[in-house]
Amino acid sequence: MSMQKPKGTQDIMPGSVEKWQALESKARDLCSRFRYREIRTPIFEHTELFSRGVGETTDIVEKEMYTFQDKGNRSISLRPEGTAGVVRAYVENKLYGEPDISKLFYIGPMFRYEQPQAGRYRQFHQFGIEAFGSEDPSLDAEVIAFGYTFYRELGMTGVSVEINSVGTPEIRGNYKARLQAFLEPFKDKLCKDCQSRFDRNPMRILDCKVDQKYFDGAPELLDDLDEACRTHFEAVKRHLTAVEIPFTINPRLVRGLDYYTHTAFEYKAAGIGSIDTIGGGGRYNGLVSEVGGQDQPGVGFGLGLERILLVLESQGVQLPQPPGLDVYLIGLGQAAEDEIVKRLYELRAHGILAEKDYQGRKMKTQMKSADRSAARFVAILGDDELERGEITVKTMATGEQETIKLENFAETILKRTRSGNENGGVQSL
Amino acid sequence: MSMQKPKGTQDIMPGSVEKWQALESKARDLCSRFRYREIRTPIFEHTELFSRGVGETTDIVEKEMYTFQDKGNRSISLRPEGTAGVVRAYVENKLYGEPDISKLFYIGPMFRYEQPQAGRYRQFHQFGIEAFGSEDPSLDAEVIAFGYTFYRELGMTGVSVEINSVGTPEIRGNYKARLQAFLEPFKDKLCKDCQSRFDRNPMRILDCKVDQKYFDGAPELLDDLDEACRTHFEAVKRHLTAVEIPFTINPRLVRGLDYYTHTAFEYKAAGIGSIDTIGGGGRYNGLVSEVGGQDQPGVGFGLGLERILLVLESQGVQLPQPPGLDVYLIGLGQAAEDEIVKRLYELRAHGILAEKDYQGRKMKTQMKSADRSAARFVAILGDDELERGEITVKTMATGEQETIKLENFAETILKRTRSGNENGGVQSL
Repeated sequence: MSMQKPKGTQDIMPGSVEKWQALESKARDLCSRFRYREIRTPIFEHTELFSRGVGETTDIVEKEMYTFQDKGNRSISLRPEGTAGVVRAYVENKLYGEPDISKLFYIGPMFRYEQPQAGRYRQFHQFGIEAFGSEDPSLDAEVIAFGYTFYRELGMTGVSVEINSVGTPEIRGNYKARLQAFLEPFKDKLCKDCQSRFDRNPMRILDCKVDQKYFDGAPELLDDLDEACRTHFEAVKRHLTAVEIPFTINPRLVRGLDYYTHTAFEYKAAGIGSIDTIGGGGRYNGLVSEVGGQDQPGVGFGLGLERILLVLESQGVQLPQPPGLDVYLIGLGQAAEDEIVKRLYELRAHGILAEKDYQGRKMKTQMKSADRSAARFVAILGDDELERGEITVKTMATGEQETIKLENFAETILKRTRSGNENGGVQSL
Repeated sequence: MSMQKPKGTQDIMPGSVEKWQALESKARDLCSRFRYREIRTPIFEHTELFSRGVGETTDIVEKEMYTFQDKGNRSISLRPEGTAGVVRAYVENKLYGEPDISKLFYIGPMFRYEQPQAGRYRQFHQFGIEAFGSEDPSLDAEVIAFGYTFYRELGMTGVSVEINSVGTPEIRGNYKARLQAFLEPFKDKLCKDCQSRFDRNPMRILDCKVDQKYFDGAPELLDDLDEACRTHFEAVKRHLTAVEIPFTINPRLVRGLDYYTHTAFEYKAAGIGSIDTIGGGGRYNGLVSEVGGQDQPGVGFGLGLERILLVLESQGVQLPQPPGLDVYLIGLGQAAEDEIVKRLYELRAHGILAEKDYQGRKMKTQMKSADRSAARFVAILGDDELERGEITVKTMATGEQETIKLENFAETILKRTRSGNENGGVQSL
């Protein structure tokens, strides 16, 4: 019987994995330029962290977590998102005590038990950044601009940025009451999801795709903002304009989590059907104290890597490929084959990308294998040549062959592969 | 109440994470040179995969797995090692149908519920390679040489390589009976662990640290090898000698898994107390058919990254650090601060590593922050200079200051930071 991967998970195989490597390499490059440092938190956390940091009444925590008891009878959950663990680690490792603010990033797998569909997996992957310790609106703008720059430098087109201010929990409290009063007359006509949100999370109702016809004239949170919230929001918009990030204001954009304050934003892209949000984030000044007692502001984003790959594919964007083979070595006869093993290792020790056959195949088949590997050179050694201390090197692009001294082999290949760059190397985007 | 990470897990924070990045970067570099391509399999698999691929009666499967029921009532386990998932993916994705052999690598977290101790975590990390589709002993030698080269290029010293041939399952069956007959007289004197291994896995008894005194004159598996096994083992040794990998033969080295055939090996390092094995592997010609029905040979290694870091630390080896900051921007006054936000983004868009303050700190404090970030340049903009269209750039190494046109700012910084490399960049090891 053959075994299969668990439902909703994927194997990322050679041929596809290079796209993931390119995404991650771009993320790391931008993190270096924007000065975000990597943090790696565990794959699982105490379940309580997510109840508190994501929210007891969210779909994620209520329905979608992989929760289990470990052998010590602790309730453990695979992380359904990246922020809670980073906040926990920020507090537990006392980064708030450092003189500068903490600008952190993570890349890794997250887990939600959802119905799998195109671009949605039970194990999915996110790239996120989180900055703690500053209320400066230029930091909100930096985070928003970072995400936009990431998409753009990957080659994605048509990305739009929607922003909003969700005020403070107090302002939202008052607004929610006004909104409920406005919605009350149509309450029974709303879809089932919206009805269940009416008490729990009425602001999410305005996001609903089916009930939009009822919402003309609904009160807007932006009208309720106080002076401080307005000033912050104006500054974010001013900075985004200054760095030429195009954005629109979506007054109904809510990120749905209680601890959001001020800025909320989403990135949208055309071309992947109904799933148009490809990332989002916001400022969450209440989260750190919720998780760890320390009152520190935070702002960040989380971007879904599967969705980015879907959009890039639908837009026909090619990500950079790793370099092809420098040299393929062929030995003819037992002694020559032994010598090839030695020379192969020598080349690799010099940093050369080198390969040989491992299946005792005929020379012609080995030449085909060299072609498939996009080898720039093929080196052929027969027992006769070995005796003379020579080896034949064929340049694949031209078909030229020449015989060189075996003792100069590594040096010659090194010189030729490092001059010119017909074969690429990882090109920057 | 503040939340803590689960017992036996670790947060890898800025300041330590750079060591992990350096390890992984070296692993990826070597995989490119040795032509192993990355594969990413799910963090969890059906539990049955590990019962079959690791072994029902192993400690790992019996005692140490994080096993749980998912919401669809499937028995799922967090992967306790990397090989089983890679073998499953190799078969499920039909890589055996490709014309060349498959040379794969993985880097990632693994999970075992063990008592935590120095260098041993419940979530730990492995780098592994697996090559499928060839019985060529030069491939066994390549795998062994690869691991040794990895340690050496990281800067580790004193690594020893122990190799053995464990023959075939049939040869081991006969040998086990001979061994049990030899051990029978002392059976009751053996330690508890060894007594429990007597029926289940008698070959592991010879590995025991406490019972060595009984084992003089024990039969050796090497004496039982048939012609084919001997020829294979001789070729592995010949190739290792040719590429100058020092090794010793340890006839009692067993990797403990039923599907091992021919080559088994371990890497050992001094300097981390009783844990001296830092990695190992072998040839497993029976595993692929066990997991997937396809009869394909395989050979590979798995290296524990936590243990490597422990050894490097005890040997005082410095891993390369990421580059420091190119330029720290200081704005004095509201208009200048706004301009700084814009210029910061401009510099970063040009690939420059640039940072500013986000806390409204005094200029002196900002200069200290620039120092901590190892900034090569500090750029200072006041409202007066802004009006004149100028900015002051200070070279931190010399203390020199000069005023340049704001419109040439990015270009000037780009020219200066890309000439010379006092500030490093990631150096190769």
